[in-house]
Amino acid sequence: MRKGLLLMAVFAGFVVAKEKIDDKELLKMARQYFKPLPKVAENPQNPVTPEKVKLGKMLYYDPRLSKSGLISCNTCHNLARYGVDNLPTSIGHRWAIGPRNAPTVYNAAIHIAQFWDGRAKDVEEQALGPIVNPIEMANTEENAVKTLKSIPEYVELFKKAFPNEKDPVKYENIGKAIGAFERTLMTPSRFDEFLKGNTKALTEQEKRGLKTFIEVGCVACHNGPGVGGNMFAKFGMITEYWKVTYPYVLVGKPAIKVDFGRFGVTKKEEDMFVFKVPSLRNIEHTYPYFHDGSVWSLEDAVRIMAKTQLGKELTDQQVKDIVAFLKALTGKIPKHALEVPELPPSTDKTPKPEL
Amino acid sequence: MRKGLLLMAVFAGFVVAKEKIDDKELLKMARQYFKPLPKVAENPQNPVTPEKVKLGKMLYYDPRLSKSGLISCNTCHNLARYGVDNLPTSIGHRWAIGPRNAPTVYNAAIHIAQFWDGRAKDVEEQALGPIVNPIEMANTEENAVKTLKSIPEYVELFKKAFPNEKDPVKYENIGKAIGAFERTLMTPSRFDEFLKGNTKALTEQEKRGLKTFIEVGCVACHNGPGVGGNMFAKFGMITEYWKVTYPYVLVGKPAIKVDFGRFGVTKKEEDMFVFKVPSLRNIEHTYPYFHDGSVWSLEDAVRIMAKTQLGKELTDQQVKDIVAFLKALTGKIPKHALEVPELPPSTDKTPKPEL
Repeated sequence: MRKGLLLMAVFAGFVVAKEKIDDKELLKMARQYFKPLPKVAENPQNPVTPEKVKLGKMLYYDPRLSKSGLISCNTCHNLARYGVDNLPTSIGHRWAIGPRNAPTVYNAAIHIAQFWDGRAKDVEEQALGPIVNPIEMANTEENAVKTLKSIPEYVELFKKAFPNEKDPVKYENIGKAIGAFERTLMTPSRFDEFLKGNTKALTEQEKRGLKTFIEVGCVACHNGPGVGGNMFAKFGMITEYWKVTYPYVLVGKPAIKVDFGRFGVTKKEEDMFVFKVPSLRNIEHTYPYFHDGSVWSLEDAVRIMAKTQLGKELTDQQVKDIVAFLKALTGKIPKHALEVPELPPSTDKTPKPEL
Repeated sequence: MRKGLLLMAVFAGFVVAKEKIDDKELLKMARQYFKPLPKVAENPQNPVTPEKVKLGKMLYYDPRLSKSGLISCNTCHNLARYGVDNLPTSIGHRWAIGPRNAPTVYNAAIHIAQFWDGRAKDVEEQALGPIVNPIEMANTEENAVKTLKSIPEYVELFKKAFPNEKDPVKYENIGKAIGAFERTLMTPSRFDEFLKGNTKALTEQEKRGLKTFIEVGCVACHNGPGVGGNMFAKFGMITEYWKVTYPYVLVGKPAIKVDFGRFGVTKKEEDMFVFKVPSLRNIEHTYPYFHDGSVWSLEDAVRIMAKTQLGKELTDQQVKDIVAFLKALTGKIPKHALEVPELPPSTDKTPKPEL
């Protein structure tokens, strides 16, 4: 009943700019939709151990997983830049330009699925994709394993990370190690403090933004601990998305190329133009926006979303408030993520890079 | 007089394999040629301050110094891989393949000059080269400065690093900041302990290798605190270098392309095929070897050098001993080098990447 009343209040949409926020009410409302981040995104199928995390971090930073010996996970998912490359779409082997914007690895482990189209079920599976994608790292599974087997330090680390396995240096375990590392890449923010009950953790404007975010309807898709990342949705509910985003393309303006999204994975008509709803954590830093990396300004992105997804024109004040709230989602990068491990040398048996 | 006797003993070349080494004699001999590394490679024209080092490290890791927004100093001079990319020659903007092997930045600040051909006088000048080289980072000076000026955090850091300047965000200061950071990238090794008097810091084989290294004549060029890096020499004293190295080329075998070396800078005939003698510190890790990155095995590289530079055929034992000594030059990477700084976000004023 109380929930019903609350929802009525939400849909009534009585948004008066700069009204005084009732902290308790707002917290109660927010807790219906959001949760603080976990410390570690556990996976019973791949328990996070210090040995796996250590190995996973080395693999994450090691360019020898690529055919050229130049590209590592960190090239496109730069941990010093909030886990992205800040390019519209990523650059891979021989300067191939990929079709979609590189999502951040921070907090990715809690998502419902991985990649914009959800084609991998978890970070363990995701991590194995780019290594063998011809326009990303362009390697083969065999060559990646051969490379790691040729380096005694890695063989030892795999043994420690997978102690019950006879032949631990195998392709699947590369994904498990990198996945375990990624499960530690959580970035709690002031919003988590707020959700835990410290209503002073957000400024008045940020609270107004949060309230607007909920009342306008953004929260219908962007909810949960990731403020997104936990469902799929059609991009372009009201208008075809490319008609709205294309005018914003600033870099390497290509011909309009429509991305079918999840349809490419499921071949179901209802998945046409459907994408994973991106998490909005650290969104301040992970520009440019959308799967096509078309839009550089967070203000523009907020306006576009309201228009194409909700059919609403936001006021300038609403946009500013929402953006203030979104910036409060910028989290603290865990220290260990940016402590780069020394990488052991190759040996005579290590396959040579191929340019 | 004593020095004379010693040199006579050296040139007599009485090398008996596995003879017992006289530690004191060897130390005395070694100290004639080598010195421990400094803690910091000071430059009176660009004093190393914490503020400059902090800024310099951020710039070193920031791919926004490149036109594409993808390539940073660290791409080719990977601090986790002893300051190199372990490629024959480096890959730059739009996958351009460069003409020479990327030298390590560790200990580079103590060299007589920078680049294989010595065309930059110090690390401050060197750091500015790749940023605007069309086949490396492909940026312009103006665009690099505009990028940094558009990011308030950087403007603040430049002010702190260059406190007496009116307009501190200028191209020259990018080089000064990166240079100051590089001046802290010293990697002392067990060999430094030995030179300081701890003769137990090297194993018997490593000492034998050191003795052989001196007696065979490698030390004629590879001396000083860098064990190289402090003079220029013709590559191919006895035989044209390319005739010897080309058969070793394993990766992307191109047509033989002869590199004139320092002649390209000075246009003096005596500089034909002259290169800076590379430092051998961390040589275990900085494969493949020579300015053309032709040779992957350290054993092969040692043999080739003895042949082309000294006209000598080394025995297997000599090669093994020298390589053991060279591996004792592997140093400790300073912790701060691998603590990657978070990089501040771009703003609406930041020039967009150009792919």
